[in-house]
Amino acid sequence: MDSITVKGWVRTRRDAKGFSFLEVNDGSCLHGVQVVVDAGVPGYDILPRCHTGSSVHITGRLVPSQGSGQKWEIQAARVELVGEADTSYPLQKKGHTLEFLRTIAHLRPRSNLFGAVFRTRSRLAFAVHRFFQERDFVYVHTPIITASDCEGAGEMFRVTTLKGNIDEKPESDFFGRPAFLTVSGQLEGETFACALSNIYTFGPTFRAENSNTARHAAEFWMIEPEMAFCDLQGDMDLAEAFIKAMAQYALEHCADDLAFFARFVDKGVFDRLRFVVERPFERVPYDQAIEILKKSGRTFEYAVDYGLNLQSEHERYLTEEHFKSPVTVFNYPREIKPFYMRLNDDERTVTAMDVLVPGIGEVIGGSQREERLEQLRENMRRHHLREEDYWWYVDLRRYGSVPHAGFGLGFERLLMFLTGVSNIRDVIPFARTPGNADF
Amino acid sequence: MDSITVKGWVRTRRDAKGFSFLEVNDGSCLHGVQVVVDAGVPGYDILPRCHTGSSVHITGRLVPSQGSGQKWEIQAARVELVGEADTSYPLQKKGHTLEFLRTIAHLRPRSNLFGAVFRTRSRLAFAVHRFFQERDFVYVHTPIITASDCEGAGEMFRVTTLKGNIDEKPESDFFGRPAFLTVSGQLEGETFACALSNIYTFGPTFRAENSNTARHAAEFWMIEPEMAFCDLQGDMDLAEAFIKAMAQYALEHCADDLAFFARFVDKGVFDRLRFVVERPFERVPYDQAIEILKKSGRTFEYAVDYGLNLQSEHERYLTEEHFKSPVTVFNYPREIKPFYMRLNDDERTVTAMDVLVPGIGEVIGGSQREERLEQLRENMRRHHLREEDYWWYVDLRRYGSVPHAGFGLGFERLLMFLTGVSNIRDVIPFARTPGNADF
Repeated sequence: MDSITVKGWVRTRRDAKGFSFLEVNDGSCLHGVQVVVDAGVPGYDILPRCHTGSSVHITGRLVPSQGSGQKWEIQAARVELVGEADTSYPLQKKGHTLEFLRTIAHLRPRSNLFGAVFRTRSRLAFAVHRFFQERDFVYVHTPIITASDCEGAGEMFRVTTLKGNIDEKPESDFFGRPAFLTVSGQLEGETFACALSNIYTFGPTFRAENSNTARHAAEFWMIEPEMAFCDLQGDMDLAEAFIKAMAQYALEHCADDLAFFARFVDKGVFDRLRFVVERPFERVPYDQAIEILKKSGRTFEYAVDYGLNLQSEHERYLTEEHFKSPVTVFNYPREIKPFYMRLNDDERTVTAMDVLVPGIGEVIGGSQREERLEQLRENMRRHHLREEDYWWYVDLRRYGSVPHAGFGLGFERLLMFLTGVSNIRDVIPFARTPGNADF
Repeated sequence: MDSITVKGWVRTRRDAKGFSFLEVNDGSCLHGVQVVVDAGVPGYDILPRCHTGSSVHITGRLVPSQGSGQKWEIQAARVELVGEADTSYPLQKKGHTLEFLRTIAHLRPRSNLFGAVFRTRSRLAFAVHRFFQERDFVYVHTPIITASDCEGAGEMFRVTTLKGNIDEKPESDFFGRPAFLTVSGQLEGETFACALSNIYTFGPTFRAENSNTARHAAEFWMIEPEMAFCDLQGDMDLAEAFIKAMAQYALEHCADDLAFFARFVDKGVFDRLRFVVERPFERVPYDQAIEILKKSGRTFEYAVDYGLNLQSEHERYLTEEHFKSPVTVFNYPREIKPFYMRLNDDERTVTAMDVLVPGIGEVIGGSQREERLEQLRENMRRHHLREEDYWWYVDLRRYGSVPHAGFGLGFERLLMFLTGVSNIRDVIPFARTPGNADF
């Protein structure tokens, strides 16, 4: 039989009389390979130094395994120790808390859990691009540093090259005025949709909010498609197709890693993904959703009333219990939504929509945008925004304005939904949170 | 014949007796469609308001064109004016300078040139992902905000939520210490390669350099693959395959837009791309490259000597004139390269490599990384770096260290090479440069 070569890291070593087992993994997939090293094989004498975490280079033959747990194993013809890891290696074969693993974010991708998480993250990122590129959407890199803000989206980080007092002479800063990290690429995305018709963004966004929850990070990746000549219906169609496609892609391309999540993280993973793939989305106006919640007989922690935002518990009730399907809620009261959403003819609601899925609630939020110049100006006045700060955004309504719509979703929230991992810090390679910019 | 619908923006209108021509473009490709509107067709009376830049909705039949320049045209059955653009619309049908178009970055993607540039940018971004995903590389989102720096890569922007004096109490800042925008994801990428074997990054990076050149921007996108169990040879193999694949992808998937660049931007575009696709890369050690340049008989603006960096004029001479092929120069003097590059056995050179292509010179820079703990420490001492600042990076050499290698390239520089566009500001949707963070 032909010889094969394996290069990877030792996960475990078990020594028996006359031979040893090594489990070697190179991170390319969940499962490592079992290597049998008989006494006398070149390199057998260095096995005592092949601790967990060591890197090795194995040459041998693939043979049917005698043991249980794997179909094949490698009968080593030669073992080379590439890089030692002594017993101070922090990722020993034993249970570690997620909190501890965050302190060794440079090593945790060598564990089964984080290998699976970050392979899934990579494949789903590609799935996002494939979804939009197949539909001829143009990928736009909207700016990270900006002097605008996407009103209401959240607190911003300042970006500066000044020393000392940064408020004294902002005009002498690098960009000639105060600059910030973007909270959303939507407004810039709209300018490209009003030129290329269908576009999407996929890039990092930032919130300087001092909130230490399992769902918030200061730096995360957002996906924001935007379509010209598109109304709220078309927007809901795309959002629903997108969520279904992501769940389907995960089922098809991440099966091993999902099985790991189902076993060790969240046993409902497969049910949840199939739920989203198989069931048609229900669409319900906000006011009806409020009525359903009021009549539910449930006691919710947060109040339910027209004019209040839906909380996660309300959203989950709608999708998991009432409709037993994914749900898109639309037409929200204008008071609780940003200035750029299109006012409906009832003059009370705007064309907002949120897609709700089991397990987490809202996963996508979007809207048709206000394309009418005078109405947009009126919205901006209500929100106390100065037109001169948004001159280029207003220009889109001045020159060849078109109905257009889009949505946004946080990539990490999508990953939490797909994997069952419940803390956002554990789906980001190096999470940034208050007090934490290590690595 | 079936009726068809076109939604887009009017590029031009020509009125004749009894009928009008509209050229309508929706940005999905370079070519618009010619629409013939006969007098009497519903909407004919609004044509005088259909100025350049207006958005329209046309219903009609596709018919063979009588005129030259297009094979088909639309015989309109109905014209709707969706959004007017009066004659103050800045993108009238006439030549505009690139400088002027930068001041209307929200409208310039509606022009032929920038439509072509940003469609090409999108397709090549996808080509980058496809290239690596097909080879099972894991896409890693390395952090944008960082408290580390990738030594020597350049000046950094500070990120803060403090007001007033930012140097007084940095420990009270959002992250508990000073934080910056990343200049490279390489070091973090290495941690993932030392777990998952083959990875790549593709994300924004930043330089706070006050340089106003056609090749520098404060914010740009970088691609950085990293491979475990890989040496300089494997690194050069991947870099060369990557450049060939990008040129090939552009030829196959961006033909119309490339033809536009060849006609209006840079007539050498196709020759340059075929040059890279067809010719094998030459590999030459740095010291030999220096000898070749010295013996060239050329007068260069910048001096040529062992220990000096190659300038663009030198690089272009090597690829365009001496070798008449793409060239990879390797094994540079250690003094002119960063601390993380692997020292060769000659103890004078490091395993750096640069890939040179015609038209621009260096397009990729990479190296095998120093994987030996003691040598890395020695390199850090020479570069006056404190080990405690890089403890996690050093850890990779302490626990299961492996030979590994990678490279980086600026996505915008790749686009400039592929399109012939000569100013980096014109391949970025909204460029950030000193004094400029508009939109």
